[in-house]
Amino acid sequence: MARAPYSAPLGVFSGFYDRYVTEGYQDPTSFDQQLRTAEGIAGLAGVELVGRSNVDDANLPEVKRRISATRLKVTTIIADLWAHRHWQHGSLAAPDGRTRALARDEIRRSMDWAAELGSGTVSVWFGQDGYDYVFQADYGRAWTWLVEGMSECAAHNPGVKLAIEYKIKEPRTHCFVGTVGKTLLLIQACAKANVGGMIDVGHALAAYENPAESAALLDHFGKRLFYLHLNDNWRLWDDDMMVGSVHLPEYIEFLYWLRRIRYAGWYAFDVYPYREDPAFIIEESIRWTDSCIALLDDLGEDKIRSALERGTGGEALRLIRRALFPGRAE
Amino acid sequence: MARAPYSAPLGVFSGFYDRYVTEGYQDPTSFDQQLRTAEGIAGLAGVELVGRSNVDDANLPEVKRRISATRLKVTTIIADLWAHRHWQHGSLAAPDGRTRALARDEIRRSMDWAAELGSGTVSVWFGQDGYDYVFQADYGRAWTWLVEGMSECAAHNPGVKLAIEYKIKEPRTHCFVGTVGKTLLLIQACAKANVGGMIDVGHALAAYENPAESAALLDHFGKRLFYLHLNDNWRLWDDDMMVGSVHLPEYIEFLYWLRRIRYAGWYAFDVYPYREDPAFIIEESIRWTDSCIALLDDLGEDKIRSALERGTGGEALRLIRRALFPGRAE
Amino acid sequence: MARAPYSAPLGVFSGFYDRYVTEGYQDPTSFDQQLRTAEGIAGLAGVELVGRSNVDDANLPEVKRRISATRLKVTTIIADLWAHRHWQHGSLAAPDGRTRALARDEIRRSMDWAAELGSGTVSVWFGQDGYDYVFQADYGRAWTWLVEGMSECAAHNPGVKLAIEYKIKEPRTHCFVGTVGKTLLLIQACAKANVGGMIDVGHALAAYENPAESAALLDHFGKRLFYLHLNDNWRLWDDDMMVGSVHLPEYIEFLYWLRRIRYAGWYAFDVYPYREDPAFIIEESIRWTDSCIALLDDLGEDKIRSALERGTGGEALRLIRRALFPGRAE
Amino acid sequence: MARAPYSAPLGVFSGFYDRYVTEGYQDPTSFDQQLRTAEGIAGLAGVELVGRSNVDDANLPEVKRRISATRLKVTTIIADLWAHRHWQHGSLAAPDGRTRALARDEIRRSMDWAAELGSGTVSVWFGQDGYDYVFQADYGRAWTWLVEGMSECAAHNPGVKLAIEYKIKEPRTHCFVGTVGKTLLLIQACAKANVGGMIDVGHALAAYENPAESAALLDHFGKRLFYLHLNDNWRLWDDDMMVGSVHLPEYIEFLYWLRRIRYAGWYAFDVYPYREDPAFIIEESIRWTDSCIALLDDLGEDKIRSALERGTGGEALRLIRRALFPGRAE
Repeated sequence: MARAPYSAPLGVFSGFYDRYVTEGYQDPTSFDQQLRTAEGIAGLAGVELVGRSNVDDANLPEVKRRISATRLKVTTIIADLWAHRHWQHGSLAAPDGRTRALARDEIRRSMDWAAELGSGTVSVWFGQDGYDYVFQADYGRAWTWLVEGMSECAAHNPGVKLAIEYKIKEPRTHCFVGTVGKTLLLIQACAKANVGGMIDVGHALAAYENPAESAALLDHFGKRLFYLHLNDNWRLWDDDMMVGSVHLPEYIEFLYWLRRIRYAGWYAFDVYPYREDPAFIIEESIRWTDSCIALLDDLGEDKIRSALERGTGGEALRLIRRALFPGRAE
Repeated sequence: MARAPYSAPLGVFSGFYDRYVTEGYQDPTSFDQQLRTAEGIAGLAGVELVGRSNVDDANLPEVKRRISATRLKVTTIIADLWAHRHWQHGSLAAPDGRTRALARDEIRRSMDWAAELGSGTVSVWFGQDGYDYVFQADYGRAWTWLVEGMSECAAHNPGVKLAIEYKIKEPRTHCFVGTVGKTLLLIQACAKANVGGMIDVGHALAAYENPAESAALLDHFGKRLFYLHLNDNWRLWDDDMMVGSVHLPEYIEFLYWLRRIRYAGWYAFDVYPYREDPAFIIEESIRWTDSCIALLDDLGEDKIRSALERGTGGEALRLIRRALFPGRAE
Repeated sequence: MARAPYSAPLGVFSGFYDRYVTEGYQDPTSFDQQLRTAEGIAGLAGVELVGRSNVDDANLPEVKRRISATRLKVTTIIADLWAHRHWQHGSLAAPDGRTRALARDEIRRSMDWAAELGSGTVSVWFGQDGYDYVFQADYGRAWTWLVEGMSECAAHNPGVKLAIEYKIKEPRTHCFVGTVGKTLLLIQACAKANVGGMIDVGHALAAYENPAESAALLDHFGKRLFYLHLNDNWRLWDDDMMVGSVHLPEYIEFLYWLRRIRYAGWYAFDVYPYREDPAFIIEESIRWTDSCIALLDDLGEDKIRSALERGTGGEALRLIRRALFPGRAE
Repeated sequence: MARAPYSAPLGVFSGFYDRYVTEGYQDPTSFDQQLRTAEGIAGLAGVELVGRSNVDDANLPEVKRRISATRLKVTTIIADLWAHRHWQHGSLAAPDGRTRALARDEIRRSMDWAAELGSGTVSVWFGQDGYDYVFQADYGRAWTWLVEGMSECAAHNPGVKLAIEYKIKEPRTHCFVGTVGKTLLLIQACAKANVGGMIDVGHALAAYENPAESAALLDHFGKRLFYLHLNDNWRLWDDDMMVGSVHLPEYIEFLYWLRRIRYAGWYAFDVYPYREDPAFIIEESIRWTDSCIALLDDLGEDKIRSALERGTGGEALRLIRRALFPGRAE
């Protein structure tokens, strides 16, 4: 009886690495183990697959067969434009033309896999497209390539949505597509119905965005919110933590706006529990989210709407406080 | 029946200014109006006075008489080391020796006022002591002056506590006493029983401190948490907002540690409601705080303690979630 | 023989205020004194005026007469949408319709003053348009009003350019038009030839933008870089410091891109020397800028261009190092 | 003829990993290759070794023999308290007692290796000691363990210095020993002559510290600056970039204070050139540093000292500007 259609990257149930612990924080697990863990989580209805890591041309039939044997849907294919050494100088905006061609090819293949697996969405994250130093990039040229590449890929299959996942930094110190504003700029320059954006809550927070505002903007300019990555962080870095753990009021406002704009897509938890049990973190994330949605349902959209239309600071927060602490204070 | 002894700066009930709106965001109010508003707030038990702005040698008897006529206590005198033009290059650590002498005198007078008004605490905030540019300060010299000045002032009246209010920046781009670590360094260098620190929650947040950890540290090194300023912000600046509005889980943890270390002092709300009704913001801050303390009382200290001793990420947060959303999820 | 046409806000030569020192850091000076100081600065070719503070319908002829008597040009009129109490809830995007009408009127008047004073540019900074708390704003509605308002104003006089000055925060904790991406979104939604953007270097830095990239983007999408505010800060706040003092390599790259995109407008220093001599800070800013431009001229555009087209981190910086320290290392 | 004794971690000449590219950004290289590359860099006089990665009980004689065959010195042993899975919940402050014992043992062994290799210094970085979530750590308990552990290790060999390397976050979202203030607190609590601190410039920047001030403080409180890690970043994360590339004026001020406090230790470049040639980045870092030191030598310590004693913003920077751009402006 989950209140939203929840998903998680299949890889969250395997172990994690960082630049210091290159042996990994846990032993890796197999595809089947990951799938079993995902199936065991109440409320989890889907999984994300990462291109190359989870799916490729060779294993596609087998992957399809195994997932079909579960109750889980594939909710997006995340194109691999960032997980291997050959992308280190960029993908669609790499200085090298062969790499740019390879990136377009990778997105198109990911679209094929998504179509075959019944997902309908490919997440496009330009993590390696950017720069680290001043005087390292030709900015205008990069945008020309981004627009050309995305437009070409979008035409490959108008039935598969491309959801741009912006992020202000990491793994580059500066990513070209870093904010919701730049994401809309790219979407509008492509002018294709199947090019939109997604909100990764933590990416928005790290760009000093309020995720609710960013979601509302993607909706306002042409209904372009295609997908979600839910998590939390300490504002300055993409810590990929359990939702609700740091920015609870901001998260509740975000969920309010998802209702308000009638977002009907997946709610995927993109978390990196390096030192925790991934299943526990996903379960808790589901419960925090379910509870916040229930609170909003009880409150009703109109009461909050009329408070926020007056624009008084703290007024709608009083409603939230009363709902969180019923009977404790007027 | 408030759950903690709450206070607020009397000046919060007057209007606010910033560098753009020099005419002020509201019309200023009189001392008596401010006092009446404070008295009207259920649960508010005390007020803070700022030296020179609210109290000086001349008006001391009159101030004492008026406050005595209310149910309110004076909870601290904030020494004026930052609100007038003559402090612009610093106070206890100003390059100019006469200014340093003036600052020591100002702290001693504030101690006299505090004693006379029954407060027992003077807040010492070195807002103007720092620098804006590289190559502008002689850092070691500044610390010599800070230690000498504080030690000398502390000796003036051992019965009045000096609560150092650290802040990482503003109005200088760099303040010398910017973090809880530097505050403890200064406290230990003074080696006086009446020199301690205070936590301004927003100052801690803006220094990427977790206020709970900072309070625990001030307690751990000699029981030196003397006073509190409660508020919230968006992490990167001292926005002085209503408590609970951004960092709710962090605030609950902070309140937990105040119980844990048996903090018995005042809970003062240092907020700047430029565009809001100050009474509303103080009332809401009291209710958020009361509700969070009640939640912690219901949970009990031991359950949380045993969860956090294991050190598992998210485990104690599950207790908080269940308490915030009873009946909604297991 | 300055290397660029330099300007400064006339008000920089008067004193400054902040939320603590409401009496001001210095005694204010008169219009004539400010003008005389400006005239005395070698290399300064223009001044900015702020609506209402410096110019209004009543004093327009007198202001024109006095400035005409100097060698200084008026380089922009900054519309007053933020300096008075009645804007505290916003201007073009205020919840109150009368305030929105007033804001449109203020921009149109500023355009008239600009035309009359020979400036041709109005700077539009939405400092008060935003929100402080979650659940305080209706984001989509705000953007509808921003687009409508700017479009209507732009039509008032197509001969006067409207230069949108984005800023991520302050005086609100969140401003609607906070990044270069959102600025371009607004520009494109208005679809008027005289609506463009400006870069305030410090605003860009505080949004974790690299000013060079932001300038290149405004140019790339329709040649929309209309004006500049030069200054520096410590990255997390709009400290409005002397240029070159913190982010020197980033500043040199910014000046490189201004040459590269053939920016031909003013170079205005928007600094807040609270505790310094304003004339000294402006003079030094001119010298730092002149020196950096000279260094770039000596290097030549092509050498840098070919290095950055390869996209290797640190390669073009080697050219900068050799130019800064000739004879010291290979 | 280098102006300072330069060092680099030997591992900088091998490849790098991050949480996305787990196959590594380059092919790893052998110990001998790394040593040959280091030897080939003009001006590089030493290398750092990381415990377990580079040196352990088994290979100690062989490591000693190979390094002795070069002109390079071993400048520090970095104790492995963070590079393997078993440290994931902490080292000296891990909740588990066996891990804490293991960590003390690891530091003592590193001290033995340092002594045997003629280094005299062990770098102690508590990267895994901290927490990720609120309600996850018992802060006071952690500090008790840190003080006990460091004191015990220090006693193992008073002839080997322990240089505490503070860092505000990463790989934990919060590290216990995060700032220069906390470092001095820990040093003073240990009260051992061979316990001191080191400055990693990037760690200081990421804590909103000015590295010059932090170095001066470590010196002021008992001459406790034992070692240096030089690099640069974009202020909000430990990007480990080439020195001078972002914060050039801050770097020059830092070098000034190293001269001023008569720092006589190593200048080690701790950089992570994921996508660059490591030798190039080290060579450039040496040249930037050499050039800045030469500039300061030419200027002389006294001129700067007298400017900064007056405390005027921008005055000493004028000297720097004139030195950087001789003949270009007065």
